[in-house]
Amino acid sequence: MADIVTGPGSAAAKAARDRAEEEGLGLAEKRVASEEIFRGRMLHIFNDTVELPNGMPASREVIRHVGAVAVLPLTGDGQAVVERQFRYPVGKVITEIPAGKLNSSDEDRLEAAKRELREETGITADEWTDMGEFIPAAAYCDEKLTLYLARGLHYGPRDLDDDEFLNVETVPFGELVDDVMNGRIVDAKTQTAVLKAACLTGYFAKGSGDGR
Amino acid sequence: MADIVTGPGSAAAKAARDRAEEEGLGLAEKRVASEEIFRGRMLHIFNDTVELPNGMPASREVIRHVGAVAVLPLTGDGQAVVERQFRYPVGKVITEIPAGKLNSSDEDRLEAAKRELREETGITADEWTDMGEFIPAAAYCDEKLTLYLARGLHYGPRDLDDDEFLNVETVPFGELVDDVMNGRIVDAKTQTAVLKAACLTGYFAKGSGDGR
Repeated sequence: MADIVTGPGSAAAKAARDRAEEEGLGLAEKRVASEEIFRGRMLHIFNDTVELPNGMPASREVIRHVGAVAVLPLTGDGQAVVERQFRYPVGKVITEIPAGKLNSSDEDRLEAAKRELREETGITADEWTDMGEFIPAAAYCDEKLTLYLARGLHYGPRDLDDDEFLNVETVPFGELVDDVMNGRIVDAKTQTAVLKAACLTGYFAKGSGDGR
Repeated sequence: MADIVTGPGSAAAKAARDRAEEEGLGLAEKRVASEEIFRGRMLHIFNDTVELPNGMPASREVIRHVGAVAVLPLTGDGQAVVERQFRYPVGKVITEIPAGKLNSSDEDRLEAAKRELREETGITADEWTDMGEFIPAAAYCDEKLTLYLARGLHYGPRDLDDDEFLNVETVPFGELVDDVMNGRIVDAKTQTAVLKAACLTGYFAKGSGDGR
């Protein structure tokens, strides 16, 4: 059980957090043993044993994932391109931005994003903006997604895998923001990508509130 | 391979999407077989076989998760309360909002949020706002998180599990927004919760852009 550190958010506190991050704050866990549970097409699953900061052992269920990319494509007239796809784990069709796994963990992420966007929607784009890293489930999976904003769109043929079924739609960007805020959009990467894009494109501006 | 549907985002198109969602758009997959791979403390893992919309079989690796809650606590003077926690799957300390698993899949989510916030930070709150559902990894996990905003905070003692190690910090809300936007905050639920809260509290306002 670690200390409570209440800081004013000053530059010094921020620098201290950076250092602490490097040093793991005395919070780090050390791997003692690793048992492979399952090697699937998508998921590689381990049941590891770690040593906690207090020296005690604990088990950690970990999914190793190759990594992924997701792309929010925006048209020149304020529309977003989204997909409607059945997601078996949740048993329903949900609205998502185009996304896909890397071919290998060292694949160039921008190239992967261009490929996935073209294959799933037929779109190529002139302008790509890296919107940052996104770790969906840090408690149990090492998957890292990189989110992109794509603008300057050109439409061509799709190239879906034989076992890939999804519909592509364009929706007004403002409606997509509303659907994130009102809870209709439940997909995590889509929520973050849409709200980040709203900031980056000036759809959102700094308001009068200070967050209270 | 399903059709491309390009709609104007009208109310009629929206209603059509609602109906299509109910009917699965002809995109639904049917479970044919299910093999249990692993039953862990946190993850229950299956390798299922499904029938695709075209009648062909496919395998689906699925993690069944009990569900979770996450809470962004905001103080009366524009500060946010966050945690710094070592996440074994990604091998580093990351900044996150307080969160935790449900005790059972039918547990009341608001009660779970109150419990997790109190245990991890010692905080109780007068005002709770449901910020909606969040599905972190719909491709392979059925986990659903509910995000909450907590205001009107009171501080008391923490009550961490013996194997739980995390630091609690307060940071200015504006700094947290900046850190989501500049990529320092990589945790998915924290990204969405911070950006949604920025909208809800008036930290963001509607700008002049229309998303292009």
